Amino acid sequence: GEGFQATINSICSSQKLMRENSDLVMPVHTTADIRKAKELGKTGILFGFQNAHAYEDQIGYVEIFKQLGVGIVQMCYNTQNLVGTGCYERDGGLSGFGREIVAEMNRVGVMCDLSHVGSKTSEEVILESKKPVCYSHCLPSGLKEHPRNKSDAELKFIADHGGFVGVTMFAPFLAKGIDSTIDDYAEAIEYVMNIVGEDAIGIGTDFTQGHGQEFFEYLTHDKGYARRLTSFGKIINPLGIRTVGEFPNLTETLLKRGHSERVVRKIMGENWVNVLADVWGE
Amino acid sequence: GEGFQATINSICSSQKLMRENSDLVMPVHTTADIRKAKELGKTGILFGFQNAHAYEDQIGYVEIFKQLGVGIVQMCYNTQNLVGTGCYERDGGLSGFGREIVAEMNRVGVMCDLSHVGSKTSEEVILESKKPVCYSHCLPSGLKEHPRNKSDAELKFIADHGGFVGVTMFAPFLAKGIDSTIDDYAEAIEYVMNIVGEDAIGIGTDFTQGHGQEFFEYLTHDKGYARRLTSFGKIINPLGIRTVGEFPNLTETLLKRGHSERVVRKIMGENWVNVLADVWGE
Repeated sequence: GEGFQATINSICSSQKLMRENSDLVMPVHTTADIRKAKELGKTGILFGFQNAHAYEDQIGYVEIFKQLGVGIVQMCYNTQNLVGTGCYERDGGLSGFGREIVAEMNRVGVMCDLSHVGSKTSEEVILESKKPVCYSHCLPSGLKEHPRNKSDAELKFIADHGGFVGVTMFAPFLAKGIDSTIDDYAEAIEYVMNIVGEDAIGIGTDFTQGHGQEFFEYLTHDKGYARRLTSFGKIINPLGIRTVGEFPNLTETLLKRGHSERVVRKIMGENWVNVLADVWGE
Repeated sequence: GEGFQATINSICSSQKLMRENSDLVMPVHTTADIRKAKELGKTGILFGFQNAHAYEDQIGYVEIFKQLGVGIVQMCYNTQNLVGTGCYERDGGLSGFGREIVAEMNRVGVMCDLSHVGSKTSEEVILESKKPVCYSHCLPSGLKEHPRNKSDAELKFIADHGGFVGVTMFAPFLAKGIDSTIDDYAEAIEYVMNIVGEDAIGIGTDFTQGHGQEFFEYLTHDKGYARRLTSFGKIINPLGIRTVGEFPNLTETLLKRGHSERVVRKIMGENWVNVLADVWGE
């Protein structure tokens, strides 16, 4: 499973991989590290969980993982855990233990992510947290109805409470699906920005580049092996931003669509750095 | 925590303890084992969990633990887990994974216990299970209002669906608290029997004999260490049945109160053996 020890083992593997590729990447624990990575022309890598299940039933693990570089954690992944419920099943809201975990994440400086979290649990985390929380990677259901997408009301609610929204380019959640282009993605960014404002928006790629069919089978089943929760069909990123290497196209597209350099800089990363600094207490 | 491996370690300790006291006790995996224990004048010991958390996120662990002698498992202990929610917090009901666990417990032959489970999750397990389920140790809220006690409607609902109720003598949940006597306990048995009938009732002691203050602190906190969920105050069993050794007093009390030997035999154990045989597929 994805409990404490299996997660530690994943961190070990990732650290080894980063060491072996230290000419290209570096770990980041602070926003100073992020700026340092940019200065060095390297890709900074921040650990984040998509499931608070790695905390198991131990509040103390929040700080243990923070010390190991885990600065953002999603409360639930698709279904129910000890903290709350995910977006693919009936959602009973944030549990009592979940409230204690949110308080500890606030204290230690770990951002609460609600991307795959259920609507009710999300609302209650937004109200419970004393630090900004985020949908790190989502799309608006105003453009396509899907359990993973967020309604206008949900986007407004998180923004009204100081929260942040990263917009994903995962094609199955875009209106045109795998026929989407980078302009359809830019349209989604604009849609969200109209609701949350230019300071609360960023990119949340959800890139799955290099992963095969087995990985997607895992993603679409509860606990990675139990009942099927969804089916993506074919997965391909929007034309124009199919790979990480095509990222400069996004800057160009946003500028072409009339956004100022100031706003594009915010969307492309400055807002993320600011909100992380706030949550991490820097 | 109380995950898979810690639970295996507990089983190892218990097996060692049983081996060292094999003149007095023996493990039971089947109802034939129960009858054998009675024949030999030994106490048969059946493993049961008060929290399905030991199954972690693996449906396959249901059968692993059954092979190790775990024949009855409570779906949730007081608060939320992957399966549902306990009786000490808001209850969102049985999760999708919980439905898969119930199906596997049915298939493998493990009884679903709902004693510390929330009202909504209990109702949904009762409806979901194809085998009888139980409140293995509870008291009626008709005699005392308490989150751990079950309403007349709840008792009727489980009985109407072929379920079983074990009545506990845990004094804090009895109307007179620690001033209760064995007659107050007998009254509670009669109260429940009036609702569920003489075939669906048994004893569920919840004896904590030999445990100290530290154990009760553990019991009254979420996850054994997190927020306090309840406070029992002083704990002492009803006068007349303070210890396991005083069990014969209960038989005598029930007979004195006018119950036939036939009914007393049912209450004292025959009903339990019958329902376990049914659930275990014997």
